[in-house]
Amino acid sequence: MEQRLTLITLGVKNLQRSKAFYQQVFGWKPTAASTEGVVFFQLNGIQLALFPQESLADDAGVSSEGKGFRRFALAHNVRSEQEVDELVTLLEQKGATVLKRPEKAFWGGYCSYIADPDENLWEIAYNPHLPLDAAGNVL
Amino acid sequence: MEQRLTLITLGVKNLQRSKAFYQQVFGWKPTAASTEGVVFFQLNGIQLALFPQESLADDAGVSSEGKGFRRFALAHNVRSEQEVDELVTLLEQKGATVLKRPEKAFWGGYCSYIADPDENLWEIAYNPHLPLDAAGNVL
Repeated sequence: MEQRLTLITLGVKNLQRSKAFYQQVFGWKPTAASTEGVVFFQLNGIQLALFPQESLADDAGVSSEGKGFRRFALAHNVRSEQEVDELVTLLEQKGATVLKRPEKAFWGGYCSYIADPDENLWEIAYNPHLPLDAAGNVL
Repeated sequence: MEQRLTLITLGVKNLQRSKAFYQQVFGWKPTAASTEGVVFFQLNGIQLALFPQESLADDAGVSSEGKGFRRFALAHNVRSEQEVDELVTLLEQKGATVLKRPEKAFWGGYCSYIADPDENLWEIAYNPHLPLDAAGNVL
């Protein structure tokens, strides 16, 4: 099995609300393949999909009942501590919930957590041990 | 905010069990930055991290209580229906739980779902509308 991933699907409560968040707060553009029932964003070699929670559970053949902590986090790393501060300020101005303000981490980085409308965690971080190339990829 | 992602962290119940699954069932190799407390896998321009559920919740400053449906899925796409069949057979032989056997999807693809030890969903799929480059990236 090749060591790679193609797509991350978030099972959301309200597709329009989530789509609005990723478009308006993050400023991301959906792909042309997006429909009334599913929304895709092209990221760096992978895609992020928004799909109703019940539809995702149905597709996998599991119960859609789930609550509390989402038990995963997505990270968007930037290239300096200042960029973390600036991005978190911008996201908060646009309506994102800031769960943890930017601060130094014990491992030498600098990070913050925000939440999307389903309380999915997004870490906005600078990690000096994990350099990014020009396209933002970890190599 | 650039339209990209750096890292996906799975908050797991038992780090050694999850590490063994991704190493032995998926056949993936952890990076040298992995420690007793966190495990990283280098994927296509992004990384996958395994981190104890309580540690992830602590880091974000939220409650670690969560149960039931994980409300997200990760997809690993391959290049043909035959490759889906072969990979799912291999993963099952190595001990993965198959939630949904490979079948034609209404959108023209062919897919299957398996679960990791925390019941995180992995979709193993072929999507003729989403070609992959030689490195396995969606472009």
